[in-house]
Amino acid sequence: MKKHNFYAGPSILPESAIKATAEAVLDYEGTGLSVLEVSHRGKEFVATMAQTEALFRELLGIPTGYAVIFVGGGASTQFFHVPYNLLETQAAYLDTGTWASNAIKEAKLFGEVLVVGSSADKNYTYIPKGYTIPADADYFHITTNNTIYGSEIKTDLASPVPLVADMSSDIFSRTLDVSKYGLIYGGAQKNLAPAGLTFVIVKEDLLGKVSRPLPTMVDYRTHIKKESMFNTPPVVIVYTALQTLKWIKEMGGVAAMEQRAILKSGMLYDEIDRNRLFVGTVAEEDRSRMNICWVMKPEYAELEAEFNTFAATHGMVGIKGHRSVGGFRASNYNALPVESMQALIECMQEFEKSH
Amino acid sequence: MKKHNFYAGPSILPESAIKATAEAVLDYEGTGLSVLEVSHRGKEFVATMAQTEALFRELLGIPTGYAVIFVGGGASTQFFHVPYNLLETQAAYLDTGTWASNAIKEAKLFGEVLVVGSSADKNYTYIPKGYTIPADADYFHITTNNTIYGSEIKTDLASPVPLVADMSSDIFSRTLDVSKYGLIYGGAQKNLAPAGLTFVIVKEDLLGKVSRPLPTMVDYRTHIKKESMFNTPPVVIVYTALQTLKWIKEMGGVAAMEQRAILKSGMLYDEIDRNRLFVGTVAEEDRSRMNICWVMKPEYAELEAEFNTFAATHGMVGIKGHRSVGGFRASNYNALPVESMQALIECMQEFEKSH
Repeated sequence: MKKHNFYAGPSILPESAIKATAEAVLDYEGTGLSVLEVSHRGKEFVATMAQTEALFRELLGIPTGYAVIFVGGGASTQFFHVPYNLLETQAAYLDTGTWASNAIKEAKLFGEVLVVGSSADKNYTYIPKGYTIPADADYFHITTNNTIYGSEIKTDLASPVPLVADMSSDIFSRTLDVSKYGLIYGGAQKNLAPAGLTFVIVKEDLLGKVSRPLPTMVDYRTHIKKESMFNTPPVVIVYTALQTLKWIKEMGGVAAMEQRAILKSGMLYDEIDRNRLFVGTVAEEDRSRMNICWVMKPEYAELEAEFNTFAATHGMVGIKGHRSVGGFRASNYNALPVESMQALIECMQEFEKSH
Repeated sequence: MKKHNFYAGPSILPESAIKATAEAVLDYEGTGLSVLEVSHRGKEFVATMAQTEALFRELLGIPTGYAVIFVGGGASTQFFHVPYNLLETQAAYLDTGTWASNAIKEAKLFGEVLVVGSSADKNYTYIPKGYTIPADADYFHITTNNTIYGSEIKTDLASPVPLVADMSSDIFSRTLDVSKYGLIYGGAQKNLAPAGLTFVIVKEDLLGKVSRPLPTMVDYRTHIKKESMFNTPPVVIVYTALQTLKWIKEMGGVAAMEQRAILKSGMLYDEIDRNRLFVGTVAEEDRSRMNICWVMKPEYAELEAEFNTFAATHGMVGIKGHRSVGGFRASNYNALPVESMQALIECMQEFEKSH
């Protein structure tokens, strides 16, 4: 049976990236060696890393003055690396969910943290608006897409201070004006690569301003200077990232990804809104295109487990909602085919008919 | 032409691990999905992670009271995580090479560092002996194998304070008495896995004693409590690690790996000592079994580039020495076949005959 991969992350990758990786695991670019066992200092991988950075920059339209680095440790590590590098006195944070809260917790170890807005009052079902960002904050931190709660900031916000964004789960899903940001980071395991890689895009003139000493691996300048090769990068993960970037380019770039995301998420939201059994959990204007959350209507609450089973037997993988929300979540990353979204919708319609 | 992989790391892995990974990239344990795109919370990967930890513990004979965690970031990240977690007042370090020096540099950010011995005076060609470890140090840090300089501490040292060892490049190459150590860490990209994974073995009662606040991701207790799943682990790298551990077990375990390492390194050291063109760089009793360094004898110095080319045309990959040492380095990790070592030796003999 055909499986439809709706996992929230690690998550679906393009077939071409998977096939190319399987081949490189057996023979990496004609070296006669596996990509799992080649030196990162060999000329083949030095070229792979350079191409990855170049294509990453090209697809996102990253201006000069911004560095791009690839490191390990995940976005959770960046939760403390960001304030370690940038927080001298006070930083502003927007609390839009679990990951934003985790980032706030780490920042408090390094300085004053002002939470300028929070949607915790309604279980993070909307994006706070109308808050004020202090003009003397070192930076303003947002989580653009809330993987768990299914809300998303889908535009580039204006900020009087450097804007720092965790874009783990929506990078490459919409066109960006990078010049509006001071720093963008994310775990790569959604729209970019398998788990094990983290990207940081940083305006270089923001660095080197804090008074505390920085451990070498924490200091972004270490990795910038060595072009992400200060220490051993996760070779095979970078290789798959490059294949994914190539696929994005072939498909028409980030603008095409955005159209796909709008189309596919719109199909599912329309069905959620139409189907008499289900209801969406997030304020309409803040609905995420990447992680679509919904629950049974209260009068059908007892059908939740049954729908999970029904969907699983129809090939749907990973649609059980996060325990913080319950219900269902379908992740709609770039590589998810329209056919998979259509299959999920048909599954919901069939389930509705039988109840 | 058959390639012989002598890379210092990332480095050769067992063929069975490579083949199993290539298959899992196309279909992970019958899920119909790639191991590159499955959730770490899915039951298949939860089982993979648990098996990896269990086999890692079994093969090294890790006693109760010690936790094993798998994290990202490489050994370079552990250079500052170790003192962050353990250094309250003073720590002792042994300076045996580049990586030891790098670890010393990071520790100085967190407390007093006493370098009890150093072989920097002779370009790190021996392991210092006869030093005194202060009884009030928080810990004593060693680098058991010096990948760049080719020296190795091949026994479990006695220490009056918790012994902390970076075993990035010799873990699983000899039997260990883990109870003699407080903490062992390493990048996994030599004898365990592709690049992108770091292991930490830690005696749990050493933790929670420093007075500074710890970032969540730095605190070893975070990862212990969540069994290396606090944040997303590098799924495919863990999968390959498990296949490598299975291979070690099938081959007879760590004791068998030690016999292989002694045999293969002995073959090459014998040839270096016999061949009139070459000379080893490291004091005989401190020679590494994992990274074998040698140079041209002074009277044949001008042949260095020629031998590098000659070896490359005979299928030898990665034998150019690190720039800090020059000459040649052959890495002899567990997965390197005896045949590859034999091929290198024949190459050296053939080169000798023609000069």
